[in-house]
Amino acid sequence: MKLDRYSSVPLYAQLRELILERIQDGVYGPGEKIPSEMDFCKELDLSRPTVRQAVAELVADGVLEIHKGKGTFVAGEAERIMIPHFTALSFSFLNLNSYENIGLKSIKLLESDKEMDAIFQLPDNQGYPGYWLAEWPLTIDNQTMGNCQSYVPVQLFPDLGQAISAGKRMIDIKSNKYAYLPQKGSLNLVARPARNKEASILDLPRRSYILAMEGPLFARSGHVCEVLRIILRPDLIGVEIN
Amino acid sequence: MKLDRYSSVPLYAQLRELILERIQDGVYGPGEKIPSEMDFCKELDLSRPTVRQAVAELVADGVLEIHKGKGTFVAGEAERIMIPHFTALSFSFLNLNSYENIGLKSIKLLESDKEMDAIFQLPDNQGYPGYWLAEWPLTIDNQTMGNCQSYVPVQLFPDLGQAISAGKRMIDIKSNKYAYLPQKGSLNLVARPARNKEASILDLPRRSYILAMEGPLFARSGHVCEVLRIILRPDLIGVEIN
Repeated sequence: MKLDRYSSVPLYAQLRELILERIQDGVYGPGEKIPSEMDFCKELDLSRPTVRQAVAELVADGVLEIHKGKGTFVAGEAERIMIPHFTALSFSFLNLNSYENIGLKSIKLLESDKEMDAIFQLPDNQGYPGYWLAEWPLTIDNQTMGNCQSYVPVQLFPDLGQAISAGKRMIDIKSNKYAYLPQKGSLNLVARPARNKEASILDLPRRSYILAMEGPLFARSGHVCEVLRIILRPDLIGVEIN
Repeated sequence: MKLDRYSSVPLYAQLRELILERIQDGVYGPGEKIPSEMDFCKELDLSRPTVRQAVAELVADGVLEIHKGKGTFVAGEAERIMIPHFTALSFSFLNLNSYENIGLKSIKLLESDKEMDAIFQLPDNQGYPGYWLAEWPLTIDNQTMGNCQSYVPVQLFPDLGQAISAGKRMIDIKSNKYAYLPQKGSLNLVARPARNKEASILDLPRRSYILAMEGPLFARSGHVCEVLRIILRPDLIGVEIN
């Protein structure tokens, strides 16, 4: 990118884009010092107020930071935590060895509903007894990084809610249930604007983008045994795909 | 959510949030008709201008659509195309059976650079001969959904560029090279604001969120044989994780 003195775009705006481009191209890396105002004036034959305005706007945008007495620096990019070897089973509730340390928010009994019945491939209006909804946050160092919801049909695990409320161990809950535990899954992963509730759970401004995953897990028996709905803060977390 | 007549938030704004919440909760599904102005007036004891303003703002936001003579509808959510069984190898260049139908933009020779050398685990300053960069768009029905970049070290595939320029078949390019073809990989998948160039490639407004994946693919020999950088439009596409 070069500055164009005959353009209708003001020079400070062109310089702002040029600096941004250099940051995005890695010429100035995260946390690095950028050239001084005088350096830019000389390199590009610009006046000082032009340079100052370009820098001021990038500071206002959070792209640059002024460290008093030291110079102007590229803002450090937050390092995301990557979830290693991510698969559809990574956040399965039924596959947990223990639910004691995940900060389980609640286990609730939900009525059978059409949408969920369809995912679980249950025919309509058969009076199915509904779903257990287990919900827990994904926190690291007391910071909420995401939220997990797991739906388990009462049909397959009739006493799940009572067992968890009574503090029964996961290994006992799962005994004789191995044919109904998740073996594989199919999560649709998308990036989309957060719904209001999701934004509030993740402590993000409304309509912020989030990473969302949703889909069924399948048991050895062939049944859909669990449906997951996971939302993640994209500024804090990513997933490793193998 | 209930309306609060004693709140400092105007009633139309509260109603707008209430309608939005009902849409997000699925009370009014995508493409469905919402109640008429009169229905809302009766249900919530509101004046008609209050209802009209709430609806007008949601129409302006693209959340609702007025179909003349028919009523007001929830805007249909664009169906995303899901890439089935997504893995780190899904967009490998070296694993292609043919590069003829992918709309290959270019194959370029890049100089050895520190960052890439580090990913390929090559020691610094050894005069490595650099990388082939293959770049191609991901298009469906003439719509750009994403963009793929693949870096292949010249050290492992010395004649890749010439072979492709000469129209050599992929099967011939790969013969005797099987030990250097990708067997597994590790892509970091994140959602982040697009860089300016990326936004322009994907035909998105600047700083729009994108799905970005980046990382090495490993050959049977243990070498990093390819590094992928993939960007996807999150409004059009998602990936299925198994």
